[in-house]
Amino acid sequence: MGEAVHEAAVEKFRVSVVGSGNWGSVAAKLVASNTIGHPFFHDEVRMWVFEEVLPCGEKLSDAINRTNENVKYLNGVKLGKNVVADPDLENAVREANMLVFVTPHQFMKGICKRLGGKIRSDAEGISLIKGMEVKKEGPCMISKLITDMLGINCCVLMGANIANEIAFEKFSEATIGYKHSKEVAQRWAKLFSQSYFLISAVQDIEGVELCGTLKNVVAIAAGLVDGLDMGNNTKAAIMRIGLREMRALSKRLFSSVKDSTFFESCGVADVITTCLGGRNRRVAEAFARTGGKKSFNELEAELLQGQKLQGVSTAKEVYDVLSHRGWQGLFPLLTTVHKICIGLLPPSAIVEYSEHAPNCSLVEGSAECY
Amino acid sequence: MGEAVHEAAVEKFRVSVVGSGNWGSVAAKLVASNTIGHPFFHDEVRMWVFEEVLPCGEKLSDAINRTNENVKYLNGVKLGKNVVADPDLENAVREANMLVFVTPHQFMKGICKRLGGKIRSDAEGISLIKGMEVKKEGPCMISKLITDMLGINCCVLMGANIANEIAFEKFSEATIGYKHSKEVAQRWAKLFSQSYFLISAVQDIEGVELCGTLKNVVAIAAGLVDGLDMGNNTKAAIMRIGLREMRALSKRLFSSVKDSTFFESCGVADVITTCLGGRNRRVAEAFARTGGKKSFNELEAELLQGQKLQGVSTAKEVYDVLSHRGWQGLFPLLTTVHKICIGLLPPSAIVEYSEHAPNCSLVEGSAECY
Repeated sequence: MGEAVHEAAVEKFRVSVVGSGNWGSVAAKLVASNTIGHPFFHDEVRMWVFEEVLPCGEKLSDAINRTNENVKYLNGVKLGKNVVADPDLENAVREANMLVFVTPHQFMKGICKRLGGKIRSDAEGISLIKGMEVKKEGPCMISKLITDMLGINCCVLMGANIANEIAFEKFSEATIGYKHSKEVAQRWAKLFSQSYFLISAVQDIEGVELCGTLKNVVAIAAGLVDGLDMGNNTKAAIMRIGLREMRALSKRLFSSVKDSTFFESCGVADVITTCLGGRNRRVAEAFARTGGKKSFNELEAELLQGQKLQGVSTAKEVYDVLSHRGWQGLFPLLTTVHKICIGLLPPSAIVEYSEHAPNCSLVEGSAECY
Repeated sequence: MGEAVHEAAVEKFRVSVVGSGNWGSVAAKLVASNTIGHPFFHDEVRMWVFEEVLPCGEKLSDAINRTNENVKYLNGVKLGKNVVADPDLENAVREANMLVFVTPHQFMKGICKRLGGKIRSDAEGISLIKGMEVKKEGPCMISKLITDMLGINCCVLMGANIANEIAFEKFSEATIGYKHSKEVAQRWAKLFSQSYFLISAVQDIEGVELCGTLKNVVAIAAGLVDGLDMGNNTKAAIMRIGLREMRALSKRLFSSVKDSTFFESCGVADVITTCLGGRNRRVAEAFARTGGKKSFNELEAELLQGQKLQGVSTAKEVYDVLSHRGWQGLFPLLTTVHKICIGLLPPSAIVEYSEHAPNCSLVEGSAECY
């Protein structure tokens, strides 16, 4: 840490949060409580707000700065007086050398286009964005998009992180994935750590980031089991098989991915949280209860009030990768989830693996199956 | 499999189940549906019944043989006509060369004493018994007790296995742990496998067997989180930390234990099942709700109608090992559970790890924590 002290003496790190939804606001709160009065960080945390006009006519950014709360996306929680909402994207990031990206994933390309050449050359990024797309050629990692388009190094932070629970300071954990520099990862950990929010860091950015996307497919599977009233035992088995296939697929896509990453918060803990609560699980449960008679689209519209379901589209994207590479037989759960989602198989197929017994050999060093 | 065919031509394997409680009866049912009409196995499965007289005056073993159901411990489920209940322990095992042990763990020493010299010299054993004792000098593995006292090789079978759910053929998985012979493990897998009960085998008998005991301490932790109304996020974090400490402790106790074992059904899946349902979780939730004012003993008597809670005594045994070796600081969750159980710490301490940040370095190749 000697070096960090030295750097701090020269110039304090300055943080901006790009995004101000539910999770973005919680991230700003976490960060702001660490920067204030800290020798290495500037107190002020600038938060870019995608401007909206509230029903009362006030602009969202003005309301945040007036009340110190994100009245729309995280009502009732003080963000910290050192959080400044800024509706001007370029202005919000101009002075920062620590950029926290936390927007819906489909916005990131546009944001990167606007920010090209407008950020500090010594900036570092971290992405809290779950749910990148998985294209046939392979996953389109958000961290890589940021690195490629902005020319900066980018870590990721994932984990069992329900924004509202962390907002109320309930105990939780998160995992930082980094590519090269352990020192940079430590700096990010210092920025986010709280006594109720423990951070660990692993040198496996792809593994950590893939967890955040693939878990949504597993949550669909778990929801189907709930809707079929199969009990905790079956649900646990499906979650385990899901975690195994997440691990095996990640390792096939990136040979650098480590088994141990899936024991971290981003792996097993996020799978548990997402399969216990969460909208993917919920809609899948409803789907199984209707016997597949209502489509996921219909149920999404009925149950989610405009929120979007990521698991179904990710299941399709993953299926495209699997069929493109001829891997369907190796990933029975991921394959079956997609076939159930599009009506090719009934919901009960989620627990029928007798024909394609689990192919354990696809994960190195794991069990032999019979 | 050529060799098995050869052996079968000479003599078929003959199975006895030592035990006839809830899980023992389900085990007999699983096994019996595989032995019937099978070229390698004798049809008949003998099940030793600890004799009881039912309220109607009939002996339990007679009732089982008359109805083909264990009317006391698994009512309403046919065991298979080839299951024969036998109240005479020595007679029940005399001809068998595949012995399935599935009794409460405290009975095994006495059973082994009675069986010494009374079993076939070519017999193989498998233990389905969860919850061996953990003594200061180290865990007293049931599989080792059987090997030492009976002079036979002994595998273990563990996993997310709620007996009643498997009795009704709901999808589940299990893990066989073996010491040397993969061929013997495969024979056991063949005996237990069903389309709804998938088996994998790992060469890590200690790891598999320790999972079945240590998970009960994690379930106490999860129940405390439920009782504190902390939400799914915190619960997932606690389950993850629990799984990590199970893994780290098992590896410290036996250097042969493998990380990958904890991804199997005996590891992550059994932790999930036990932390979602189960009596350890349930009583710990009640304990937290009373603010620790009622003791675990009182709550056990109130809530469990005579059933016993394993987690609290295992937590104490584990604590004795940790303090004997000076490892408490390395295992904050396991240590804290015991201190809460005996009233030294309040239930809320289960989520207070700020002082003793997780010591990840205790698991090889895992994350660095901050």
